[in-house]
Amino acid sequence: MRFIRVGEAGSERPGVDVGDGRFVDISDIVTDIDGDFLSSGRIDEVRAVVADRVAAGSVELLGDRRLGAPFARPHQILCIGLNYRDHAEETGQAVPAEPILFTKAPNTLIGPNDDVQIPRTSTKTDWEVELGVVIGQRASYLESDEEAEACIAGYVTVNDVSERAFQIERGGQWSKGKSCPTFNPAGPFLVTPDEVGDVLDLGLWLDVDGERKQDSSTAQMVFSPAFIVRYLSQFLALEPGDLINTGTPPGVGMGFTPPQYLRGGEEIRLGITRLGEQRQHVLA
Amino acid sequence: MRFIRVGEAGSERPGVDVGDGRFVDISDIVTDIDGDFLSSGRIDEVRAVVADRVAAGSVELLGDRRLGAPFARPHQILCIGLNYRDHAEETGQAVPAEPILFTKAPNTLIGPNDDVQIPRTSTKTDWEVELGVVIGQRASYLESDEEAEACIAGYVTVNDVSERAFQIERGGQWSKGKSCPTFNPAGPFLVTPDEVGDVLDLGLWLDVDGERKQDSSTAQMVFSPAFIVRYLSQFLALEPGDLINTGTPPGVGMGFTPPQYLRGGEEIRLGITRLGEQRQHVLA
Repeated sequence: MRFIRVGEAGSERPGVDVGDGRFVDISDIVTDIDGDFLSSGRIDEVRAVVADRVAAGSVELLGDRRLGAPFARPHQILCIGLNYRDHAEETGQAVPAEPILFTKAPNTLIGPNDDVQIPRTSTKTDWEVELGVVIGQRASYLESDEEAEACIAGYVTVNDVSERAFQIERGGQWSKGKSCPTFNPAGPFLVTPDEVGDVLDLGLWLDVDGERKQDSSTAQMVFSPAFIVRYLSQFLALEPGDLINTGTPPGVGMGFTPPQYLRGGEEIRLGITRLGEQRQHVLA
Repeated sequence: MRFIRVGEAGSERPGVDVGDGRFVDISDIVTDIDGDFLSSGRIDEVRAVVADRVAAGSVELLGDRRLGAPFARPHQILCIGLNYRDHAEETGQAVPAEPILFTKAPNTLIGPNDDVQIPRTSTKTDWEVELGVVIGQRASYLESDEEAEACIAGYVTVNDVSERAFQIERGGQWSKGKSCPTFNPAGPFLVTPDEVGDVLDLGLWLDVDGERKQDSSTAQMVFSPAFIVRYLSQFLALEPGDLINTGTPPGVGMGFTPPQYLRGGEEIRLGITRLGEQRQHVLA
């Protein structure tokens, strides 16, 4: 299934995308696409309801309605750094021996087509298309990748927007450049693993004003989503609904010579195979 | 006022400590000590109700009831590194030119006297007594320390438990050694600023098995709580209920020669002037 959340910010209603610009409203049976729902074991029940409603013609057109992030604000947003071999090369850093963890403030989460706001005083706001992993079961001290896969509720397209001066030039840790308001567009869909297919064979790309900047495949990942979930669970407890951004491929603005950074008025488009596309207007 | 939360983990009820081991239950008028309450402007109303109940003798004895953290799980836990001059020296690092930000997972928050669990495979679990700041109003792009002070709901004693190998030896960022389960005891009280007095003149100390390890004063801070709140608000949006751990003074285990780390069976005691004392049993 492809979960969506439709409506204005703060009052989105849960639904399921059924293709051709149509969706089924499930707000009468699901409060929200959040940790409680994702860990409830009700996915098959919802799938059956959606099939019935499609058969009965109980679908709505999305039209120009706003999409929120396809899941509620998580307990935490974790991010993996330098997880594509070519991106590590691009930034002049070694491929890490184990996953590099950093975090984003959960309130950075916005809808896939919401505006991205360049922070005040920023000169180096950058883009990063990423595969997002949403957790479906509490995960602590997992012992195998199979256990980790069972803890994954689904996958989502994410733009891990980053301010490079805040991240790198303002003190030793990265969080400062990762947590600015609007810095985590997610969606349009939260796609359940059965519809994603091979998560290590997805194309992902990003354009700025129609010019292709990033164009790669999750086949280039250093650490797989299952490995990352198992690994992180050795250090902290993952909760249902938590988001993990699994790193970005080459082509971020910082990697160009000279570097290219976002400016007010530009448009970012990005997408991942079977996970859908985003489009953000950049505000100065 | 000194807010507390009394009861078993996950079902704590809000109250106000009124001294001599007594408290007033306020669960009939306040759902929880959380962001909604702290930003609601109802502090004076609650103060009046508590005064009435004390006058009427409607108080309860705490006895051996469990205390939870004195505020609900926050949206985010932010931490400032190396914010005491002597601690920076102790760790061999320069006093930072601006605050160093790192984060802890919000689900590390536990009660002030709950057990601290040494993580599996850990050899370097360490202690850090800290002044915690709890946010009372959304804060973004604050322009003065006065504005920042108005955004502070209160102060709390915190133990910023840290696994030094996870923090320093397992990849470039600190979060991995800061987010292990049970790593953020907080409380017993959330004390409103009017009862704290000069927040830059509070003694803070920590003992392990009766031996004094940390003994300093918030007068040694590099950056004040108000400065930190204003500074962070330039990078991210602080939300009501968010917790900021403002850094630790000298005497952490890592700073001894040879280093001293926590072992199962030990007892940590720590406290801050007017913010109350904690006692944690360490589990291997």
